[in-house]
Amino acid sequence: MPHRPFMLGLAGDSGAGKTTISTGIARLMGQERTTNICVDDYHKYDRKQRAERNITPLNPACNHMDILEQHVRLLAMGEPILKPIYNHSTGTFDPPVYVPPPRAVSDGNRMIPRVVVLEGLLTLFSPAMRERYHLKVYVDPEEELRREWKIKRDVAKRGYTPEQVVADIERRMPDSQAYIWPQKEHADIVVRFYRPLGYDPERPGTLSVRIKLKHSLPRLDLTEVLHSAYEDEPTVLRLETRKEADILDISGGLSPEKAAVFERLIWEQLGPHAEHFNPELIGTFWDKGGHSYPLALSQLIIAYYLVHMREQAVQHGVLSYA
Amino acid sequence: MPHRPFMLGLAGDSGAGKTTISTGIARLMGQERTTNICVDDYHKYDRKQRAERNITPLNPACNHMDILEQHVRLLAMGEPILKPIYNHSTGTFDPPVYVPPPRAVSDGNRMIPRVVVLEGLLTLFSPAMRERYHLKVYVDPEEELRREWKIKRDVAKRGYTPEQVVADIERRMPDSQAYIWPQKEHADIVVRFYRPLGYDPERPGTLSVRIKLKHSLPRLDLTEVLHSAYEDEPTVLRLETRKEADILDISGGLSPEKAAVFERLIWEQLGPHAEHFNPELIGTFWDKGGHSYPLALSQLIIAYYLVHMREQAVQHGVLSYA
Repeated sequence: MPHRPFMLGLAGDSGAGKTTISTGIARLMGQERTTNICVDDYHKYDRKQRAERNITPLNPACNHMDILEQHVRLLAMGEPILKPIYNHSTGTFDPPVYVPPPRAVSDGNRMIPRVVVLEGLLTLFSPAMRERYHLKVYVDPEEELRREWKIKRDVAKRGYTPEQVVADIERRMPDSQAYIWPQKEHADIVVRFYRPLGYDPERPGTLSVRIKLKHSLPRLDLTEVLHSAYEDEPTVLRLETRKEADILDISGGLSPEKAAVFERLIWEQLGPHAEHFNPELIGTFWDKGGHSYPLALSQLIIAYYLVHMREQAVQHGVLSYA
Repeated sequence: MPHRPFMLGLAGDSGAGKTTISTGIARLMGQERTTNICVDDYHKYDRKQRAERNITPLNPACNHMDILEQHVRLLAMGEPILKPIYNHSTGTFDPPVYVPPPRAVSDGNRMIPRVVVLEGLLTLFSPAMRERYHLKVYVDPEEELRREWKIKRDVAKRGYTPEQVVADIERRMPDSQAYIWPQKEHADIVVRFYRPLGYDPERPGTLSVRIKLKHSLPRLDLTEVLHSAYEDEPTVLRLETRKEADILDISGGLSPEKAAVFERLIWEQLGPHAEHFNPELIGTFWDKGGHSYPLALSQLIIAYYLVHMREQAVQHGVLSYA
C-alpha cells in the first residue's frame, strides 16, 4: 500500500509570496520530511504559442488542468509523478522530473505522513484538486505589495525590466481577477500582508499581516494560546472572532521580545513534530530583505494547524501505514 | 465516467518489428479510432548518464517503471497522460507530450471502445502492466532477422554506422536475454518471422511467419475458418493444435491469389468494426521493402482477436459507456 501524505494546497497570484510561505513551512516541518512542489508548469503552450494565442498562463484553458488534477490526486494517493518543467528563461519546456512517492517519514518515535506542499497559481481552482488537500492556504497581499514584490523578483530572477513586469501584470489583470483571486474563497487560511501607516518599502520587516482563520478549520486552542499572551498588546496582536472566520492581526511594530514570546508559545504547541526550533529558519523574505515577525508567525500558525490536522488524520485512520 | 479503451500490449526486442505490426493494426481498426503509443521513453538517464553508469535502456532499473505502470493504468482507466519523450537524435529528453483521454469512438452505428496500442521494449514486463491489457502480443523474429532489421533501421533512421549498431546489439545482449525475451511467456499471441530455405534478404516479402495462438485467448472460430480454406494448401498454411497453443505457419511462398482468399476470409470475420477493406493498407514493411502476405495475415489475425475480444468486453459490460 502506498503511503498517503498530508496535502497542503497553497495558491496565490504571481509574486504574492507563495514560496516565501512554503519555504518556512518546510523548514518548520523538516526539509527531509516535506516535499515542496511548484505546479505552475502544466502549460499547454510555450511562451511563443501563448503570445500567438493571446492567452496567459493564469487562464485554466492555457493549462493541462486534467493532468494537474491527476497529479494532485496521484500524489495524494502516495504515488510518484513525472512532473513537467517550464523554463522561465527560455519560455519553453525542459525534460520532466521524477517526483518519488511521498512516503511516510520518521519523527524519531514513529512513522508520520510526509507533508506535500503544492504551491501554484491554480492549485485551489477546481473541486477535483481542492478535495485532495487536507489544508488550503491562499496568500493575498495588498495588490500594491504584490506588484512591488513581483517586480523585484522578476527583475532579479527572471531577467525582465521593471517596465516589462508592469506591462505583464496589466495584461494578466483580467485573468488574475477571473481565475486566481476567486480561489481565496476556498482557502481555510488566508494570509494578507499589508502596509501599516508610514510603511517604509526598504524595511519589509515592518509589514503587518492579517490572517483569516476560517471555520472550516478544526477548533484548536491556538486562539486561546495567543489570547493569554496578547491581552496587554492589543496594538500589536489582535484577534477578532467573526461569523465566518477568526481574524488575527499581527503588527509589524511587534517588538522582537514580544515576537519571541509568541513564537515560543506556538512552537510549544507543535510538539515533537518539527525540527529543533531555530527562529532564524523562518520569517525570512526570499530576497533577504530582512526578518519579519509577522511572516514568522504566519508560518508558525500554518504549521500549527498542519501538525494538529495531520495528527487528527492519523488518529482517525485517514492517513495510516502498514 | 471516463471511457475505458481496449488495451493492446505489444512487446519485443529492439528492431523486432513492433511498429510494423502496430501500424497495420491501426490501419485495420481505423487510425482515428486507435491511439498508438510507443512507451520506450521512460528512461531515468539520458545517453551520457547511461554510458557513465554502464546500463542499457533494456534494463528495468534504467527506467521509471513505476511511472510506466502508472501511465498504462491511467490510459486503461480512460485518463490522459503527459508522456515523456526520448529523443534518439540527441540522446536526451524533449518536452513531454499530452495524450488525450482515449475516449470511445463511433463505428457508424454505436459507440465502441477506442483501441490503445502500447508498444515498447518492456510493455509486458511487470504484472501491474500485464493485468491492464486485454490482449498481449510479442514479436519474436529469428534473431538473425532482428539484427538485420535493426541494422537497417538504425542506420537509415537514427544515423548510426552498421558497426555501431552491431556493437550496440552485442552490448545489450545480456539485458535482451534477461529482461526482454522472457516477456514472450506472458503474451497471448507470439509472432515469429523466419527465413524459409533459400531466403533472399532482398525480398523480405518471402519471409514465412509462425503465429503462436495461446490458449489464454478466447476460443474463436478463426482456426475453423482457415481450416476450411487451407486443406489443399498444407505447404503454405499449416495449423497445428498443441497442448499450450495453436501454431499457425504461413509460408512466404503463398501465392497472391491464395493470400487474397485468406485475407478476405479473415476480413469478413471483422464485421463492421474495421475500415473499408483495402489490402494495400497492411502487409507493408516500414522500409517499403515490399509487400508480405504473411505480415498482412499476421496483422489481420491480431485484429480478428482484438475485434472479437473487444466485442465480448462490451457485451459483458467490462467496457461500457454512459
